[in-house]
Amino acid sequence: MDITHIEHLGIAVKSIEESLPYYEQVLGLKCYNIEEVADQKVKTAFFKVGQTKIELLEPTSDDSTIAKFIEKRGEGIHHIAFNVPSVSEALAEAEAKGVRLIDKAPRGGAEKLNIAFLHPKSTCSVLTELCEQPK
Amino acid sequence: MDITHIEHLGIAVKSIEESLPYYEQVLGLKCYNIEEVADQKVKTAFFKVGQTKIELLEPTSDDSTIAKFIEKRGEGIHHIAFNVPSVSEALAEAEAKGVRLIDKAPRGGAEKLNIAFLHPKSTCSVLTELCEQPK
Repeated sequence: MDITHIEHLGIAVKSIEESLPYYEQVLGLKCYNIEEVADQKVKTAFFKVGQTKIELLEPTSDDSTIAKFIEKRGEGIHHIAFNVPSVSEALAEAEAKGVRLIDKAPRGGAEKLNIAFLHPKSTCSVLTELCEQPK
Repeated sequence: MDITHIEHLGIAVKSIEESLPYYEQVLGLKCYNIEEVADQKVKTAFFKVGQTKIELLEPTSDDSTIAKFIEKRGEGIHHIAFNVPSVSEALAEAEAKGVRLIDKAPRGGAEKLNIAFLHPKSTCSVLTELCEQPK
């Protein structure tokens, strides 16, 4: 798989508003975008840290996967997202190598990326997203 | 705090040997260093992904904090490490802003970095390390 860099890290939080002071005032990062991703039932806040983004994920509904994650494990790092030139090629390669896929085909994610998730059963328990920049 | 980039992500694994095929053969990353950090009771394996490293952490003893993490939460992302020009200055700044520190002063970590950990109670539940490159 031709990974160029870590596109972002997804971090589950109960409240973006309550988390912002830590990220902005303590770490000194700047939130440059807050966006709702309706089909994932989350509100997201983005910060740039060098080549990588931090994406805070706040559930907008009790049946959001992020709400369930927080209920089960508490707030914390939820997933890692690798940037690849082509998500569909990376998915095909992963599947050929026996990796279980959550998404069989790329779909739209936050920040207009094409994204797909691999199943943590196949990724040493790290929920893993593949991202392709919009053309 | 003057963070330049994410220095590494620490991922807790039961066995580096069993995790390597996923990181090397599926993701296509190359392990360039395996090192034991005696005082943390871990064996570490490093991969470079763009600007950031992935650090696999395998416990070398049942009373390692990584062994306890895996016992409690399973394998997965354990901590995020930010690169800063000076860990001691960043610690002083964090403490002045009310952040609880695990390490009051920098200490030696893997890859000859100077490191210190902030307490997850003060970092939105994300175990956070600060790293300074060796001179």
